[in-house]
Amino acid sequence: MRNTFGTSVAVTLFGESHGEYIGAVIDGMAPGAKIDRAYVSNMLAQRRPEGKISTSRVEKDEFKIVSGVIGECATGTPITVLIPNENVKSADYSEMRTVARPSHADYTAECKYHGFQDSRGGGHFSGRITAALVAAGAICRLALENKGIYIGTHLKKCAGISDRELDDIVADIKAVNEKRLAVLDDGAAKKMEEAILLAASEGDSVGGVLETAVIGMPEGVGEPWFDTLESMIAHIMLSIPALKGIEFGRGFAISDMKGSEANDPMRIKDGRVVTITNNNGGINGGITNGMPIIFRTAIKPTPTIFKPQETVNFKTMTNELITPKGRHDPAIVHRARVVQDAACAIVLADALAQRFGTDFLK
Amino acid sequence: MRNTFGTSVAVTLFGESHGEYIGAVIDGMAPGAKIDRAYVSNMLAQRRPEGKISTSRVEKDEFKIVSGVIGECATGTPITVLIPNENVKSADYSEMRTVARPSHADYTAECKYHGFQDSRGGGHFSGRITAALVAAGAICRLALENKGIYIGTHLKKCAGISDRELDDIVADIKAVNEKRLAVLDDGAAKKMEEAILLAASEGDSVGGVLETAVIGMPEGVGEPWFDTLESMIAHIMLSIPALKGIEFGRGFAISDMKGSEANDPMRIKDGRVVTITNNNGGINGGITNGMPIIFRTAIKPTPTIFKPQETVNFKTMTNELITPKGRHDPAIVHRARVVQDAACAIVLADALAQRFGTDFLK
Amino acid sequence: MRNTFGTSVAVTLFGESHGEYIGAVIDGMAPGAKIDRAYVSNMLAQRRPEGKISTSRVEKDEFKIVSGVIGECATGTPITVLIPNENVKSADYSEMRTVARPSHADYTAECKYHGFQDSRGGGHFSGRITAALVAAGAICRLALENKGIYIGTHLKKCAGISDRELDDIVADIKAVNEKRLAVLDDGAAKKMEEAILLAASEGDSVGGVLETAVIGMPEGVGEPWFDTLESMIAHIMLSIPALKGIEFGRGFAISDMKGSEANDPMRIKDGRVVTITNNNGGINGGITNGMPIIFRTAIKPTPTIFKPQETVNFKTMTNELITPKGRHDPAIVHRARVVQDAACAIVLADALAQRFGTDFLK
Amino acid sequence: MRNTFGTSVAVTLFGESHGEYIGAVIDGMAPGAKIDRAYVSNMLAQRRPEGKISTSRVEKDEFKIVSGVIGECATGTPITVLIPNENVKSADYSEMRTVARPSHADYTAECKYHGFQDSRGGGHFSGRITAALVAAGAICRLALENKGIYIGTHLKKCAGISDRELDDIVADIKAVNEKRLAVLDDGAAKKMEEAILLAASEGDSVGGVLETAVIGMPEGVGEPWFDTLESMIAHIMLSIPALKGIEFGRGFAISDMKGSEANDPMRIKDGRVVTITNNNGGINGGITNGMPIIFRTAIKPTPTIFKPQETVNFKTMTNELITPKGRHDPAIVHRARVVQDAACAIVLADALAQRFGTDFLK
Repeated sequence: MRNTFGTSVAVTLFGESHGEYIGAVIDGMAPGAKIDRAYVSNMLAQRRPEGKISTSRVEKDEFKIVSGVIGECATGTPITVLIPNENVKSADYSEMRTVARPSHADYTAECKYHGFQDSRGGGHFSGRITAALVAAGAICRLALENKGIYIGTHLKKCAGISDRELDDIVADIKAVNEKRLAVLDDGAAKKMEEAILLAASEGDSVGGVLETAVIGMPEGVGEPWFDTLESMIAHIMLSIPALKGIEFGRGFAISDMKGSEANDPMRIKDGRVVTITNNNGGINGGITNGMPIIFRTAIKPTPTIFKPQETVNFKTMTNELITPKGRHDPAIVHRARVVQDAACAIVLADALAQRFGTDFLK
Repeated sequence: MRNTFGTSVAVTLFGESHGEYIGAVIDGMAPGAKIDRAYVSNMLAQRRPEGKISTSRVEKDEFKIVSGVIGECATGTPITVLIPNENVKSADYSEMRTVARPSHADYTAECKYHGFQDSRGGGHFSGRITAALVAAGAICRLALENKGIYIGTHLKKCAGISDRELDDIVADIKAVNEKRLAVLDDGAAKKMEEAILLAASEGDSVGGVLETAVIGMPEGVGEPWFDTLESMIAHIMLSIPALKGIEFGRGFAISDMKGSEANDPMRIKDGRVVTITNNNGGINGGITNGMPIIFRTAIKPTPTIFKPQETVNFKTMTNELITPKGRHDPAIVHRARVVQDAACAIVLADALAQRFGTDFLK
Repeated sequence: MRNTFGTSVAVTLFGESHGEYIGAVIDGMAPGAKIDRAYVSNMLAQRRPEGKISTSRVEKDEFKIVSGVIGECATGTPITVLIPNENVKSADYSEMRTVARPSHADYTAECKYHGFQDSRGGGHFSGRITAALVAAGAICRLALENKGIYIGTHLKKCAGISDRELDDIVADIKAVNEKRLAVLDDGAAKKMEEAILLAASEGDSVGGVLETAVIGMPEGVGEPWFDTLESMIAHIMLSIPALKGIEFGRGFAISDMKGSEANDPMRIKDGRVVTITNNNGGINGGITNGMPIIFRTAIKPTPTIFKPQETVNFKTMTNELITPKGRHDPAIVHRARVVQDAACAIVLADALAQRFGTDFLK
Repeated sequence: MRNTFGTSVAVTLFGESHGEYIGAVIDGMAPGAKIDRAYVSNMLAQRRPEGKISTSRVEKDEFKIVSGVIGECATGTPITVLIPNENVKSADYSEMRTVARPSHADYTAECKYHGFQDSRGGGHFSGRITAALVAAGAICRLALENKGIYIGTHLKKCAGISDRELDDIVADIKAVNEKRLAVLDDGAAKKMEEAILLAASEGDSVGGVLETAVIGMPEGVGEPWFDTLESMIAHIMLSIPALKGIEFGRGFAISDMKGSEANDPMRIKDGRVVTITNNNGGINGGITNGMPIIFRTAIKPTPTIFKPQETVNFKTMTNELITPKGRHDPAIVHRARVVQDAACAIVLADALAQRFGTDFLK
């Protein structure tokens, strides 16, 4: 299926960094689901680069919805969002065609597309495409919120500097969603910005860890094999550029715990089954247990840096030294945060529609 | 699709811990692919519990192949493997029906299946089902080996004790595949066994980290969106019971690195493009670059322990104290190692058949 | 996906004519759905050859369900049905390996499987596999009946002899489902049997047309693109061996009508929207309108005949004359009737579970 | 998957009759496949209404390709085609919202979308959407032609008037593809036009039968279960609006033949296996045998007519009399011919890419 993700709610992505449009088709949104263009704009704004900690390529992201919506409601047929690429500068990228940027997709694109790939600005591999993912995810996320399901993501770590732990998850989700830089601890936020600026000044880049929490998911969603909710979330997350790992609940740390420490004790509270701890991140046996879903992802430092690097020309098959020029992000983890929210919304919308039918998200 | 994974090579799993058979249907194996029953048996033997570090439930796993194979060759139509459940003891599990074992799927199964689930020994959620996955994976893995693609997995960590780093990957894969306990450093292996036995003696359990390496994968396999090879691998891995995280290349550690450290310099070597380091684990932009694929997974400590735990009866909605009895694994990470090999083989077989056509694995 | 059909309720088929088992995995049946082994047996009996109008190979079809069912209820996890092949005579078929039987799949199997196909008795292409389809369909059909949805199929035509038109559809479905030879007009039934026997005596075979009616389907099921209910029904039907066409409502005859004749006038009746005629067969724009679903399929005469035929040896690439021996059906249309019922039940179960969620069929 | 068809080459459709754009995303086209905008334009022109035998709504169909193509080559990533809707007249259709047009999708859309559907001009159900399908199919069809695979469709029948039989298929495909009205016999063409004009003058409509032939398909393409090539072709065809039946080879007529008449004798000719007759339409056991693929479809008379008809208001649940006004097609069979070509190209492109890998169509 490649560029389409999902079964009952399916999203198809298209476009290249320097093409006319990027966009997304969202198929299966419940008829009558609320479509709020301002909500989509707000999420796109959270992804947009701003200030010195991001690339100087700024897009207005003035999307338009060309199908599937009448007024402010989904019709139930495919919703198509188009986002024009305005700030296109092809010239900077001409050198990239045959000289691979290390740890970019330049060489693997060549292996797969045999020279026919659009290599302008990363083409279809560009982080630019995540704007379309965000637009699609915004539509799903609002539908989830209307069912009482809320998603929030903070920078758990950036450039080695950690945010505080999640505490009151409901409040923390609300707090990060209102922040431009999604860090709960303002002191940590300041240090992260400084570290990003420092890396930028050195022509270098930094990475980080994103932590997402979801509240309000009904129990009983997900499959034992193979479509565990963890599998589905991991599938969509690991297609986000620069994302190199994912862990649920305590994740890798749980592998150092004993069963007696890791198991989440269960209790009845207010007539519901809850767990005292949430080391399993709200999912047991692949299926939601009603506790918050918690996961973290590893975002690598942006591969575009302005330092000289050893590389190859894959046409001439010769060794080269490359010193990229142009625009770049000294970090993308702060921008990726809303991409993660969006991707999470898509996968949850799909899982819920599969479980409860195509009208559930209305 | 639920219990089916894959597109061009698709595996369907079925069965319960205490049913008559568990099994798998492998659809799309290339006609003429070699089927070696001894190879399958060997992989099943690697998964089988042995000695004091595993459960006392031992199954012979005397599988039979009832379709899709003539002599020693795949016909190209669905291959069905049946594995009888022999060592069935239903009585030990009767208490589990309504009193949830913490961090097991008992409660989530109730939420999803409303009391109709087979709760004997974990039913369809049981690790027992991984025997069918291993059988299916064995068939795929041999086909990969016949194309020069080799997979190996070692216990990177168990009970907090670390194995040595991968060094000569070709030799290390060969070494671990011949070992019963897949640890490269024999001293570490001994300590891990001791730690497992200690946990067992305390009625407790331990977890660990598995690291998988793949050599010989052709360049250019995987998709930019959404079916990156990382997405597909993560999808199948995170459906393995007890697996709570996955990371590729340097994984979470890469998020602390600078771009200038994380980027893999590229060189021409023996007429091929290689990278000097492999921090990206053989995948860029979702597509293989010809370097070894490297990933690690987090395996939680077995949730079944013999210590008293707070839990609930989800029928009566009352708080309970539970002290499980029966058979259990004080660790499953050493048994899961071959499950990870198998799952990896399935996803790679599928990706290759999609890329190069249905006859590729012949 | 090949041997798997469906999304929310998915059926995987496996097996060969002369292998140990044929079988089916039904994934996604609602937890708590009634499983009645006698109901399955009855449908298998309707498919079984009987008397002189069918092959002399008779199988007891003593199926067993080895997963996914406890007592008389679906657990919600994959249901696996195994049917042993008992009456296996491999010798009769040895000549078929390289000399193609005209209008069989012998030559196309060679093109696809390059000599590795199981050619004993048609292998995976054999009509024998439809027994597994019938078992899977029986489980779906009973679930549909418990929701008030009934399916029936009659021989609209056999050997050129026509049954009467459907009249009172509720009564007609009931009537044909109780008949061994599914013909509404007993006089026509007698003539059909005579025609089949005559063809058999000449070593020849005959075909026919099957007409299926479904009552009780809710309105609003199906998709405008591409998964119209007609598309989904046609997809599964045209995978039944020997089926060469399908038409809905008036089908090909509607192409000779004027719009003013073909359009179905609409009325309110008993508080529901109905149509006076049903030329569109209960589906408009790919979606059910609440009227009976009506479709007909063309079944070709069995290609196995005992007359000399011109053919080729595809190994030696020489012309040959073939005069098949062994067992054969002088017609299969009367046996295919229950296969059509079963396939119809599978596709409707899937469409309903997609539409209304995975618990709908409970 | 709904609005997406295909696995290795997948097409997603979107848009409504009176929205801003309709369009298609073609995912999986081989990198380097030739993209000829004039070829696409020509196919769109064949679909466009012309003269008195079609609607007076004429669209220029000035499509643009906004992703996936550089110069005249596919990049290998999703190709997006946008076609603006220019000739929009919403007013004529306002009455349709609650008063159902008989045998249209108005009522079933209400059942599925609960009042949120776009009912302007048929919305997403409109034949207008087939323009996007044609554009997608044009891209696939040119890729097929570059591999020596040619598709052609003629009006086998219209308003009860028959075209001549296919004779020299290679020449006939060439001939019809150059004709505006795809009828081989010019005398029959004239009569068909007259019959359409007569129906138009009466405010009525007529239907017909389309016959498609494909030459050059490799042997061995298709699956035995469930994705026979017949299943896949039927699936996509039966999602075309107004199409109510499909038959392969001799189709329904084969059900009246004896096996000795229906079986296609096989011979070696010029070193290849051929059949003397082609009653099976080039497919045995779901797999191509190298002979031309032949199928026919039943197209119903356009449901929009200008005669008074009994219908209902599904909001007020009252009986109504309707006499539609506006633009309409007195027949669509002559326009549907290129839609059928396009749909056929999509399904064959997908089947070939699954079989031979993603680079095959380059």
